[in-house]
Amino acid sequence: MPRFATLDDLRRACSDLPLIDPKAAEAARLRQGVLTKPPGSLGRLEEIAIRLAGWQGKERPALQRVSAIVFAGSHGVTARGVSAFPAEVTAQMVANFAAGGAAINQLAKAAGAELSVVPLDIDKPTADFTQAPAMDDDAFLTAVSTGHDAVAQDADLIVLGEMGIGNTTVAAAVAAGLFGGNGGEWAGRGTGVDDAGLKRKAEVIDEGLTRHAGRLGDPLAVLAALGGRELAAIFGATLAARRHRIPVVLDGFVCTAAAAPLAKLSAGGLDHAIAGHVSAEAAHRRLLEALSLSPLLDLGMRLGEASGACLAVNILRSALACHNGMASFAEAGVSEG
Amino acid sequence: MPRFATLDDLRRACSDLPLIDPKAAEAARLRQGVLTKPPGSLGRLEEIAIRLAGWQGKERPALQRVSAIVFAGSHGVTARGVSAFPAEVTAQMVANFAAGGAAINQLAKAAGAELSVVPLDIDKPTADFTQAPAMDDDAFLTAVSTGHDAVAQDADLIVLGEMGIGNTTVAAAVAAGLFGGNGGEWAGRGTGVDDAGLKRKAEVIDEGLTRHAGRLGDPLAVLAALGGRELAAIFGATLAARRHRIPVVLDGFVCTAAAAPLAKLSAGGLDHAIAGHVSAEAAHRRLLEALSLSPLLDLGMRLGEASGACLAVNILRSALACHNGMASFAEAGVSEG
Repeated sequence: MPRFATLDDLRRACSDLPLIDPKAAEAARLRQGVLTKPPGSLGRLEEIAIRLAGWQGKERPALQRVSAIVFAGSHGVTARGVSAFPAEVTAQMVANFAAGGAAINQLAKAAGAELSVVPLDIDKPTADFTQAPAMDDDAFLTAVSTGHDAVAQDADLIVLGEMGIGNTTVAAAVAAGLFGGNGGEWAGRGTGVDDAGLKRKAEVIDEGLTRHAGRLGDPLAVLAALGGRELAAIFGATLAARRHRIPVVLDGFVCTAAAAPLAKLSAGGLDHAIAGHVSAEAAHRRLLEALSLSPLLDLGMRLGEASGACLAVNILRSALACHNGMASFAEAGVSEG
Repeated sequence: MPRFATLDDLRRACSDLPLIDPKAAEAARLRQGVLTKPPGSLGRLEEIAIRLAGWQGKERPALQRVSAIVFAGSHGVTARGVSAFPAEVTAQMVANFAAGGAAINQLAKAAGAELSVVPLDIDKPTADFTQAPAMDDDAFLTAVSTGHDAVAQDADLIVLGEMGIGNTTVAAAVAAGLFGGNGGEWAGRGTGVDDAGLKRKAEVIDEGLTRHAGRLGDPLAVLAALGGRELAAIFGATLAARRHRIPVVLDGFVCTAAAAPLAKLSAGGLDHAIAGHVSAEAAHRRLLEALSLSPLLDLGMRLGEASGACLAVNILRSALACHNGMASFAEAGVSEG
C-alpha cells in the first residue's frame, strides 16, 4: 500500500502546509543588517540566507546534508516521435548515473550533494496520453508516494531533477493543463528536435489537452493524465520537503512543471522552493513567471538531471558562508554609513 | 624602479598580446561533442570549458591554483561627498580582510581561492580628479606595476576585485572617459548614496571629464587622470594574466572599468577575461555591453571585493568537473540522438 492510498489522502496532505518560521527569518534579516557590507549589497545572497533561515527555523542555517534526487521515468508518448533521442536512452542514462559518468555525477560532487537516482518502472512506459491517461490512480499515487518517501527528514536541502526521454513534451502538456495555452506555446526543442519534431510535439500536446479536457480543472488529475512517473515523484518529493520544512531547489522545465500543481492546490505551496536556474527550453521562463519564481542562474542549460539546480547549490553555500561567517560592524570596528 | 618605468614601456607591453591556443580549444570543443548529454545542453558551461582549455593550452584545463587578488586604494574625490561611507572605511575594511571577517574571506574560501589583499598607499589618497590628475605618471606606473607583479605565473585562474571608498565615482569617470557619455549616464548609487549624493556624483564626474578633456583620447591617460591606484593595479594584473595566458574573472563595475583600457588599447585585449557577474550598480551592464562581455551571474550584488567574481568561480569549477569527468557516449554505451 503506498503512503497515499487515495487521491483524497493526497489532497489532504497538500492542504494545511507548514509556513516559514517568521522569528528565525526576522533574526536572520537583522543579522544581515549588521554585517560588514553596505545594506543589501549582497543582493540575492541576503534573500537566500533569510529564506533558508526561515525554513530551517534557525538564525544561522546550515547546508550539512544536501540531498540531490533524480527521478527517472519512461513515456508512452515517445512513440509519437517527440524526442531527438530514442526511448532506450532513459535506461542507458540511469546506468550512466550509477557508473558516475553523467553530468549530474560531477555537478552533485561539486555542490557537495549526495546523489540518489530513483528509476520508476522505466521498463514499463506510461500510456500515450493522447490515447488514455498516462497513469491510472494507482500508478500515480505509487509514484507520488515513492517521491515523498525519497526525502530524508534530516536533510538540510533537497535538490530535485529528472531523466526521461520524451518528458519535455509531457511537461509542456502539464504546464498547458495547469496554466492554459496550447501546445505551440509550451513546446520547445527539448534535447534538440528539428522543426518537424517541434511541430509534432505541439500537435501531440494539443491532442492530449483535448482528450483530457474534462480533467484540467484538477491539478492532480492533470499531473496523472498528462504527466509521468518521474514528474509525479518530483511532486511527491516537493510536498514531503514542505511538510518537513526543508527548502527545495528546483531544476529546469520538467522539474518545475512537476512541482507546479502544489502551487495550484495551495496558495504559497511553493514558498519553500527556489528556482535553481532558467532553462534554455523556452517555456521554462514562462512557467517560472506563472509561478512567480525568479531563477538564480541563466546559463543556457537544458540538460535536466538536476544539473542547473546543483549548480545553484554553490550559490546557496556561498550565501550561508557570508551569513554565518562574516563579522559585524561592531566586531570588526568598521564605521557604518 | 617599477616594472614599467615609462608610459611607453607599458604601452609596448599592451600591444602584441598572446592569443588563445586554437588547437587546445578545438580539442576541448570536440570533447564536449562526445560527452553523454545532448549537444549544447550544458550551455555556457561548455563555452567556459572550451575557453579555459584555449587559454591554459590543454584539452582538459584545471583550476588547481585559483588566486583572488583584492586591491585597495584611497581617493581624493571622497572630499566631494560622493560616498555613503566615510573614507576611513577603506583602511578599516582592509583590516577586516586581514582578520577574515569580510564577505570576500568567506566567498574566496567557498570558491577554493587563495585570497591576497594588496593595499596601495591607502594612507595617501590620490588627488581629487576635479582639481588635478588623480595620479602623476610615477604613481600610476607604480600602481600598474604592483598589480602586474601580484599575479603568480603558475596560477590557473586570476580573480580580481577592489576596495576603495569613492571608487564607483572614479570608475564612472573612467568609463565615461573611455566610452563617452556624461556623469548622469554612468553614476550610480554605489554603497547607497541618496538622491542628493547621486546628483553630486554626476556633477563631480562631469567636472573631471571637463578638466581632463584633452586626455580622453588615450586610455592610459584616462586611467591615470580619472582612476585610482586600485584601478591601475587591476589593469596591471589583467595585463599580466594575459601575458601569462592565464584566464581572469572580473568582478563588478569598478573592476571592469579598471580592465577596460586594455580592450581599448588592443583589439581582443580582454578575450581572456570572463565577467563574473553584473552588478546592481546600473552602469555596469552598460559597460559590459560596451565591452561585449556577457556576465555569468545576475544576483543584484554590488559589494565589490571580488565577491561576484568569486561566486562565479564555482561555476567555472562545475564546468570543468563536467568537461573533465563525464563519460563519452561510447564509454557509457549510450545511444546518440
